[in-house]
Amino acid sequence: MNNQGFFITIEGPEGAGKTTVMSDVVAQLTAEGYDIVSTREPGGIRISEHIREVILNNTYTEMDGRTEALLYAAARRQHLVEKIAPALKDNKIVLCDRFIDASLAYQGYARGLGIDEVLSINEFAIGKLMPDLTLLFDLEPSIGLNRIAKHDDREKNRLDVESLAFHESVREGYQEVVKRYPHRIHVIDASKSQEQVTKNVLEVLRKSLQSRMK
Amino acid sequence: MNNQGFFITIEGPEGAGKTTVMSDVVAQLTAEGYDIVSTREPGGIRISEHIREVILNNTYTEMDGRTEALLYAAARRQHLVEKIAPALKDNKIVLCDRFIDASLAYQGYARGLGIDEVLSINEFAIGKLMPDLTLLFDLEPSIGLNRIAKHDDREKNRLDVESLAFHESVREGYQEVVKRYPHRIHVIDASKSQEQVTKNVLEVLRKSLQSRMK
Ligand SMILES: Nc1ncnc2c1ncn2[C@@H]1O[C@H](COP(=O)(O)OP(=O)(O)OP(=O)(O)O)[C@@H](O)[C@H]1O
Ligand SMILES: Nc1ncnc2c1ncn2[C@@H]1O[C@H](COP(=O)(O)OP(=O)(O)OP(=O)(O)O)[C@@H](O)[C@H]1O
Ligand SMILES: [Mg+2]
Ligand SMILES: [Mg+2]
Repeated sequence: MNNQGFFITIEGPEGAGKTTVMSDVVAQLTAEGYDIVSTREPGGIRISEHIREVILNNTYTEMDGRTEALLYAAARRQHLVEKIAPALKDNKIVLCDRFIDASLAYQGYARGLGIDEVLSINEFAIGKLMPDLTLLFDLEPSIGLNRIAKHDDREKNRLDVESLAFHESVREGYQEVVKRYPHRIHVIDASKSQEQVTKNVLEVLRKSLQSRMK
Repeated sequence: MNNQGFFITIEGPEGAGKTTVMSDVVAQLTAEGYDIVSTREPGGIRISEHIREVILNNTYTEMDGRTEALLYAAARRQHLVEKIAPALKDNKIVLCDRFIDASLAYQGYARGLGIDEVLSINEFAIGKLMPDLTLLFDLEPSIGLNRIAKHDDREKNRLDVESLAFHESVREGYQEVVKRYPHRIHVIDASKSQEQVTKNVLEVLRKSLQSRMK
């Protein structure tokens, strides 16, 4: 094992099953003895939570796309500094529900700011801590939105209420991001059953964790 | 006159007299018939005000320098979009109390993040809207801090309580910024009396506004 932990992110559109599957996967790997820190932005970091209040306030309809992108990068930075980086330094496996690729797909591509430009402010935010491995849950956006509508009674935030066309564009954005990072990002078919998706994810993770220990 | 207004910023350390002199100058130029919009970040923009609450909260001692820089850039962006850009489009003269150079000097230089790196996230934030003219109030930091201690009974925020050494470093940072933008930035000796500083500023502004109208 190297001395820098292992940093895994899970990405994909709303309702793809990221949170559900991640929780199954963490339970399973922890039972097998892996030392996993599971997190998601804002990660309980009070400064990042405060920033999220600004981002997700659904009355702030005048928010500019670049303001939004900078706020996500700021919240990401603080979460990284306080939680992700220390865990990696401790040689933990960190599993994070959404990270930089969400900004590239949502703000860079779907909001039209440009993937390169959004990448550059995120590089300012995260420095060298790019994920070692990313699982992209790929799914027809209408299916994801239907899953949420059926099962989920969270209050809708400023991004949840975007149109289906926006979410179609997010999916295209993720596909562009895969083209840039074909070695880092592994696409998972998220239209399968929860059990099947969990099984596929575990397979990819085990392979990757094992090759790391050699 | 061109069709894009004229964008002037005033910069310099705490207590240099920026706010005081700016108010004298705006009163004078307005009386002479100039159409001036005077503003300062966060400019009454509710999203930027909300972001400033995060930045200046003096209990957030764990805030990372890069988080701080990204938050300033976010607040700047929204203020620019909602207030500065529309006024310039209306062909107004915009006078803004601190802007991008403060980030270059405080976060880029004094916090040690690097002027180039902080410049790049600020270029993401402001696009092509760099100031046309900047007045840098230059002053021994201890004098500025003394002025504030004597006359000013504002509550101290997270940046006000920084050490004298930090403020010395901010001054050096501003000097570095002048080296990069010698044509845009005009240095004003802020150790002079308020009347003298106001007179010098008016002189520079009148010359610049007149050459613009030719
Ligand atoms: N493979 C699956 N098939 C059908 N339903 C699923 C599947 N995986 C998860 N679900 C259900 O879909 C809903 C959304 O799942 P989940 O919250 O995990 O998605 P998510 O990707 O985390 O979404 P968000 O981006 O909004 O956080 C939940 O009600 C969950 O039980
Ligand atoms: N030229 C001057 N000589 C002496 N005192 C001055 C001068 N100009 C302003 N002051 C006084 O110094 C104090 C600080 O001035 P002011 O608030 O305008 O500074 P500032 O540059 O806007 O500071 P900050 O960066 O904290 O906003 C005020 O009490 C003001 O009356
Ligand atoms: Mg989720
Ligand atoms: Mg002031």
